[in-house]
Amino acid sequence: MRRIICRVAYDGTTYSGWQEQPTAVTIEGELNKALQSLTGEEIHVIGASRTDAGVHALGNICVFDTDSTIPPERFNKAMNVRLPADIRVVESGEVAADFHPRHQRTEKTYCYTIWNGDTENPLWNRYSMHRYGEMDLDGMELAGKHLVGTHDFKAFCSARTSAETTVRTIYDVTVQRSVEKPELIYIRVTGNGFLYNMVRIIAGTLVEIGAGLRNRESVLYALREKDRTLAGPTAPAKGLCLEEIRYPDAFFPTIRAKL
Amino acid sequence: MRRIICRVAYDGTTYSGWQEQPTAVTIEGELNKALQSLTGEEIHVIGASRTDAGVHALGNICVFDTDSTIPPERFNKAMNVRLPADIRVVESGEVAADFHPRHQRTEKTYCYTIWNGDTENPLWNRYSMHRYGEMDLDGMELAGKHLVGTHDFKAFCSARTSAETTVRTIYDVTVQRSVEKPELIYIRVTGNGFLYNMVRIIAGTLVEIGAGLRNRESVLYALREKDRTLAGPTAPAKGLCLEEIRYPDAFFPTIRAKL
Repeated sequence: MRRIICRVAYDGTTYSGWQEQPTAVTIEGELNKALQSLTGEEIHVIGASRTDAGVHALGNICVFDTDSTIPPERFNKAMNVRLPADIRVVESGEVAADFHPRHQRTEKTYCYTIWNGDTENPLWNRYSMHRYGEMDLDGMELAGKHLVGTHDFKAFCSARTSAETTVRTIYDVTVQRSVEKPELIYIRVTGNGFLYNMVRIIAGTLVEIGAGLRNRESVLYALREKDRTLAGPTAPAKGLCLEEIRYPDAFFPTIRAKL
Repeated sequence: MRRIICRVAYDGTTYSGWQEQPTAVTIEGELNKALQSLTGEEIHVIGASRTDAGVHALGNICVFDTDSTIPPERFNKAMNVRLPADIRVVESGEVAADFHPRHQRTEKTYCYTIWNGDTENPLWNRYSMHRYGEMDLDGMELAGKHLVGTHDFKAFCSARTSAETTVRTIYDVTVQRSVEKPELIYIRVTGNGFLYNMVRIIAGTLVEIGAGLRNRESVLYALREKDRTLAGPTAPAKGLCLEEIRYPDAFFPTIRAKL
């Protein structure tokens, strides 16, 4: 029996999120189905991040156990021929039998993409939220930096959370405009873990700050008061992408996929 | 009666091309339906470029005649609320009653996108062809420059063409790697008009040259012999996007959309 680790990329548009459900099509469900077809074993993958419906990923991580003799680094190709085109296993390898993708110190980076053109762009509609008008990117980034550190993020978390604690650590928040396609704005948030809807609420709040609808200090006030109504709206799922999960020991040193 | 001009962007993935068909969903058909719902008139738009099934556009052009009192520059927003999200009228305006989008001297720019990563990227799968391995971009561009000028492009044209002449003028061919996302390669071809499948055959040929499967001079040989079998394969429709159509008089000086 070996434990295999996979880096998984997907277009989440048509999926009901990561987590397997009896009556809905999910990323986890498709991976389990592909593995059963490949190995003949009943396999249930363990995911690092249970992304929401409509959220995308370039670097989600999962592990599973198998008796298959397929070489660990070849699982990705064998799985890909059995997966729909909008889910790809980017790479695979072997990890220690006791490695659990959620019981580890990690750094996760999410990217929230905004299409800042006058009109929606149909070629970015699946992967961004549309916001026209001038955006103050410096103000957005400065507000984002207020979130860096270890804080109680109760104000930036859906009431539907089941987390035991709402304390998390954010390592960095950056806001950048693409040089090649200046209509694209990327909000990147890196942390040790995120609460339910947390990145989307941060993005929604920063977008309001960028548009001049709220001031930068409102972020500090929301943090201090721990009041969800003091933060901005939850930005749409389609703009969110889980870019990367880094573990203390780098399993995949070679590939760092980017949107 | 006024003649309205529109710049149209679309994700062509799910459409049977531009041209209206009785039993298939097309871009032209959706535009006509939206205009009928908006004006109550039976309107048939005239498109500048009848793109193929699966081909995308950021700057296709169409015109139509209407008695509607909607201000010409507001047609785009009124149409967009009646169009599916993957078709957007980027802007609209009025032109002379005798302006025909195909009876004009134009410059059209098509962009062919290649995802040059080790593994397919599900977030680029709709808008690019996948090609792994090293690509010689300088060689591709040099081969592309052989096509610049006025030539008989019979070798770079599907046998299904209905064109009277296969002579066209190409103004420029460029091959660039994205700096921000180095897995993306853009082949841009600008000309006064293109034959059936012409840009896709040019792209397919340049990709083979970039991969070292054919030499640069094969382009000159194919041109001279006017033999389709001497050019490369037709690259998939999904990588192709009509970026821009420029007319001698710029109707839309303000917006230049880019993928």
